[in-house]
Amino acid sequence: MTLTLDHAREIMRAARAKGRELGLNPLSVAVLDAGGNLLAFEREDGAAPGRFAIAHGKAYGAVMLGMAGSAQMARAEAQPYFMAAVNGAFGGQVIPVPGGVLVRDSSGAVIGAVGVTGDSSDNDAAAALAGIVAAGLTGES
Amino acid sequence: MTLTLDHAREIMRAARAKGRELGLNPLSVAVLDAGGNLLAFEREDGAAPGRFAIAHGKAYGAVMLGMAGSAQMARAEAQPYFMAAVNGAFGGQVIPVPGGVLVRDSSGAVIGAVGVTGDSSDNDAAAALAGIVAAGLTGES
Amino acid sequence: MTLTLDHAREIMRAARAKGRELGLNPLSVAVLDAGGNLLAFEREDGAAPGRFAIAHGKAYGAVMLGMAGSAQMARAEAQPYFMAAVNGAFGGQVIPVPGGVLVRDSSGAVIGAVGVTGDSSDNDAAAALAGIVAAGLTGES
Amino acid sequence: MTLTLDHAREIMRAARAKGRELGLNPLSVAVLDAGGNLLAFEREDGAAPGRFAIAHGKAYGAVMLGMAGSAQMARAEAQPYFMAAVNGAFGGQVIPVPGGVLVRDSSGAVIGAVGVTGDSSDNDAAAALAGIVAAGLTGES
Repeated sequence: MTLTLDHAREIMRAARAKGRELGLNPLSVAVLDAGGNLLAFEREDGAAPGRFAIAHGKAYGAVMLGMAGSAQMARAEAQPYFMAAVNGAFGGQVIPVPGGVLVRDSSGAVIGAVGVTGDSSDNDAAAALAGIVAAGLTGES
Repeated sequence: MTLTLDHAREIMRAARAKGRELGLNPLSVAVLDAGGNLLAFEREDGAAPGRFAIAHGKAYGAVMLGMAGSAQMARAEAQPYFMAAVNGAFGGQVIPVPGGVLVRDSSGAVIGAVGVTGDSSDNDAAAALAGIVAAGLTGES
Repeated sequence: MTLTLDHAREIMRAARAKGRELGLNPLSVAVLDAGGNLLAFEREDGAAPGRFAIAHGKAYGAVMLGMAGSAQMARAEAQPYFMAAVNGAFGGQVIPVPGGVLVRDSSGAVIGAVGVTGDSSDNDAAAALAGIVAAGLTGES
Repeated sequence: MTLTLDHAREIMRAARAKGRELGLNPLSVAVLDAGGNLLAFEREDGAAPGRFAIAHGKAYGAVMLGMAGSAQMARAEAQPYFMAAVNGAFGGQVIPVPGGVLVRDSSGAVIGAVGVTGDSSDNDAAAALAGIVAAGLTGES
């Protein structure tokens, strides 16, 4: 199964709706496909201008490593030099904290990742998960 | 005046609708704000995975230089080494061809840029312009 | 509201005057607009030659993340790998310590940032704030 | 003799005054010292946001190569691959066109360079020269 633009748009819509429902800061949402390439992105009004790099980095690390943001953070806490080295290998594009969420289809295959930034890392992850569920898919944060 | 996410979403919707109307290849559309920072992006199903870099590069060059894609292309034809050097100065992020379209408000101020890629450069520019007009703004391609 | 060159010049003048008043080391002052792009810079005689990169990095991180230098430093102390990763995502351009000060207009909107370097981080921040206040704006250090 | 911040401020003031006198587009002016390091910069209101990279690149190429902008352009016309290779060696930071002007003291020694961008390359160079002359120094464009 392949993540489509319709999936991505529904994920962004529902993630942002979750942010409004929870009263979060303005969110930015990036959706990447199974190859780590950008499918769609939205930055809400009022978000800082550099939020794309953060949202992208959360999703990119997740899909390229096959590890969700919390697993990456645990590894970074245990072995900071390892995640620093990983980042070197990926051109500095990996942001290893919650808010980077793997997207799986019904067979369990990773078909992409979502990166959300703007509030606390945990709230970012909750918004991403809400978006993925709304699109009928399974998230791993 | 500031480009909002609602503007960006309408620009992407209408640019893609123009692509469907004209029977173009799958399009990718990037919308950048007045500071050259990404506001929104959509890549249609069937587009090549690397299309974000192209759409972004068209819009980025336009807004950072204050020159639309055709003006950049004219300069690149006349002085190829100049546009190559400009690209070096901007980290290789500038794609100097049509499809990078400046967005102006009613006072004439540049408030952002749109980059479209997927079909011929001229068709890409036409789709970008259609999107900008649909959002009630003025485009310079 | 947009930060103008006149604002920037007044900020640099008053920040430097504060440095002279407090007897600080030679200062360098960078002023960035709301999109993270350089508006103006001055390096005082006697400052080390590489001070632009530091002043710029303090201001750049502030405006791109929407976080002043002290908030960035707190995050860097708590999660060093996070700020290291953020820096990778921004091409190594972020300096997460005091002296990077957000500039807000009367509505509270971030309209740019000031980066000062040359003395202790706290003195750098004090000089930046003095500059911002002299220009009739509000700083968040 | 060393280029001071006072020199740089006078150069920027007079270059910008020349631009206003000639009715040029908004200008951006970078002043680099003899080591190729940024001393001062100003971007006039209405200039495109990315103008720092261009102004800097013109001045940087001039001082690092010891060749003014027109000499670099002549070389680029004759051997485009040479200037492309030079740019590779300097991290893409060289813009080889007029508007990059060497600054010499009364002994003929290069003590820095000025880069101006915003109008035609020749007008940019004229504004830079006017600034250098106003500061009591000699320019080579």
